[in-house]
Amino acid sequence: MANNTFPLDVALIHYPVVNRCGEVVSSAVTNLDLHDIARASCTYGVDEYWVVTPDPQQQELAGEIVGHWTKGYGGGVNPDRRQALSLIRIRSTLEEVVRQVEQKRGRHVSVFATCASDKNNTVDYAAARGRLLGGEPMLLLFGTGWGLAPEVMAVADYMLPPIRGYGEFNHLSVRSAVSVILDRLLARP
Amino acid sequence: MANNTFPLDVALIHYPVVNRCGEVVSSAVTNLDLHDIARASCTYGVDEYWVVTPDPQQQELAGEIVGHWTKGYGGGVNPDRRQALSLIRIRSTLEEVVRQVEQKRGRHVSVFATCASDKNNTVDYAAARGRLLGGEPMLLLFGTGWGLAPEVMAVADYMLPPIRGYGEFNHLSVRSAVSVILDRLLARP
Repeated sequence: MANNTFPLDVALIHYPVVNRCGEVVSSAVTNLDLHDIARASCTYGVDEYWVVTPDPQQQELAGEIVGHWTKGYGGGVNPDRRQALSLIRIRSTLEEVVRQVEQKRGRHVSVFATCASDKNNTVDYAAARGRLLGGEPMLLLFGTGWGLAPEVMAVADYMLPPIRGYGEFNHLSVRSAVSVILDRLLARP
Repeated sequence: MANNTFPLDVALIHYPVVNRCGEVVSSAVTNLDLHDIARASCTYGVDEYWVVTPDPQQQELAGEIVGHWTKGYGGGVNPDRRQALSLIRIRSTLEEVVRQVEQKRGRHVSVFATCASDKNNTVDYAAARGRLLGGEPMLLLFGTGWGLAPEVMAVADYMLPPIRGYGEFNHLSVRSAVSVILDRLLARP
């Protein structure tokens, strides 16, 4: 375990996600999703950051980026970035991630999905924070593209409410959504 | 005014900022800083998002990116992105931004700087949120690179506290920091 604070893992799903037409697609790994979410994970005390893509070439690309910062030149120049990116684990499927997280916790892990619209079975942020600080292991799922596919939602035990500000807009980047949700769950008072 | 919710403006400073050695430098405009911070600004109801760089070529680059999404092909394909990026204003200096924001508000605007370490004259998030929801015009300053230069800090009326999670890491991306701070100030209950 990279961090020893609260039992929270984050997974960023590249397949299956939906595109703007609601079709199930696979999205590409992006450099900034790796960096920004690793840095936020490290700031808030996330244990491991799982990057999920079944595409071998995308896995290779992600692995090269992570390697550059954890074992290669980048890590020597910027040790903070090495620390952050060392939280990243690249896996093919969500099932594999759930299995490995449950293995390390030795118990069932509550899977929380995130979505920009209202859903059933929603647990509010204060309650989720309380459960996490109380020691309940959690895995948070975030979707790239236009969000998690229905089959991923179906795997989740709970939903977190959509993030709403006072604007009339509802299209945060996944990097922003992860940062805000981690702050709501694991901000230090 | 693009939004009519609360009187908040955000400025992203590319000069003067500090590098990892604490030297005052100018940083480059990045595509994702424009997109992610515009989307977060639009979500939380920020009025205008000011991108500050004195470099004419950097201003041109930023202008081309914004134009692609607000007037060009990108905006037709993705109207949400057009809406978000239409909040962006490119200016040469912070002084110019402060002058224009005060002009539109018709009164003094409280300038809040943000920083990853503790400073004097700090206003906590609950108090800043209360003042903003009560109608006090505010301009929030964020630094690229390793953060705002001392001369920018000196211009600010107040500081917001550093963001801390339960991890031992203190290196959020500026995109994440803006998202988290906007959520603390303007999340809809």
